[in-house]
Amino acid sequence: MKSTTDQETVINGVNVSQLGQTVDAVKGDPGLAKFRFHCTNRWINGGHNRSTIQSFYGAGREHTERPQFVMDCGEPPVLLGSDEGANPVEYILNALAGCMTTTMIYHAAARGIKLESVESELQGELDLQGFLQLKDDIRKGYQLVTVKFKVKSDASAEQLEELARNSPVFDIVTNPVPVNVHVEKI
Amino acid sequence: MKSTTDQETVINGVNVSQLGQTVDAVKGDPGLAKFRFHCTNRWINGGHNRSTIQSFYGAGREHTERPQFVMDCGEPPVLLGSDEGANPVEYILNALAGCMTTTMIYHAAARGIKLESVESELQGELDLQGFLQLKDDIRKGYQLVTVKFKVKSDASAEQLEELARNSPVFDIVTNPVPVNVHVEKI
Repeated sequence: MKSTTDQETVINGVNVSQLGQTVDAVKGDPGLAKFRFHCTNRWINGGHNRSTIQSFYGAGREHTERPQFVMDCGEPPVLLGSDEGANPVEYILNALAGCMTTTMIYHAAARGIKLESVESELQGELDLQGFLQLKDDIRKGYQLVTVKFKVKSDASAEQLEELARNSPVFDIVTNPVPVNVHVEKI
Repeated sequence: MKSTTDQETVINGVNVSQLGQTVDAVKGDPGLAKFRFHCTNRWINGGHNRSTIQSFYGAGREHTERPQFVMDCGEPPVLLGSDEGANPVEYILNALAGCMTTTMIYHAAARGIKLESVESELQGELDLQGFLQLKDDIRKGYQLVTVKFKVKSDASAEQLEELARNSPVFDIVTNPVPVNVHVEKI
């Protein structure tokens, strides 16, 4: 899908003209590239808690004019919950799928590559002995994640994979991120 | 909140008797601890795509009797979207908040520690110059995540933080996870 007006080029649903303007703006003022995302969460009961996401800081200001996104985290009965929502490690798979897809789409658009369809299937392998502290040498998180894309496009599979690897969530999952934790008693 | 029947002890909404049975079962057959979570995703347009999460494998079988969880990933206008959903790096904050909270609750329950309330605020710092490939030395994902908990409990802040650090998503974010990517053209 590509449409052109006097001023705007849209490829894969991405406004490439605006993308170019964003790149130029950031080149002129790198401070515009600084983003800060927020999330608040409240425990409800057992393995059930709820996150609210609304504003974020980016492009030089706080964006408060946004819909509120509410997400319930739950656990299935075998993990002592009642399926109140997807569980947190499942949300990781969603974040990875969504980010790699959007990254493939955006970076393809920036290069003039059109995509017709993108589907993916993800699997994450986890050994509960880590979380249960039964074995010190078994990690608590995923031991392996597999991402399989099916893409309809003229570009090669190698190029599409290379584009998707620019994903911020791919970086977050495959490389260490420093996380500062602070607990205050109230 | 603690209630006791002849057979079951519940602390923080967690069935501690069932948790103990799970630990015993896994000790007897470590294969029961192997879990495999799934996610499928389909691109819709631009920065909008949709994940579906339903079944998972764990405790020796595929669990298909579950509600379907559908999540839309979107982007805000400043990132060329229309706020079709939270964006993927925001879903990471939700996953981290949810997992650290559930982990604190479950591990406290296992130790007989009661919690009255748990709230958290998370922030993730990201420099878009990485994603835009404007600077090679700026990573694409979060440079720093901050997690601030406010907890009402008799336990010490240090102990509560230690419990929360057993979180699988905390492990996934702070340590590298191998991710295999395969792109098939259709």
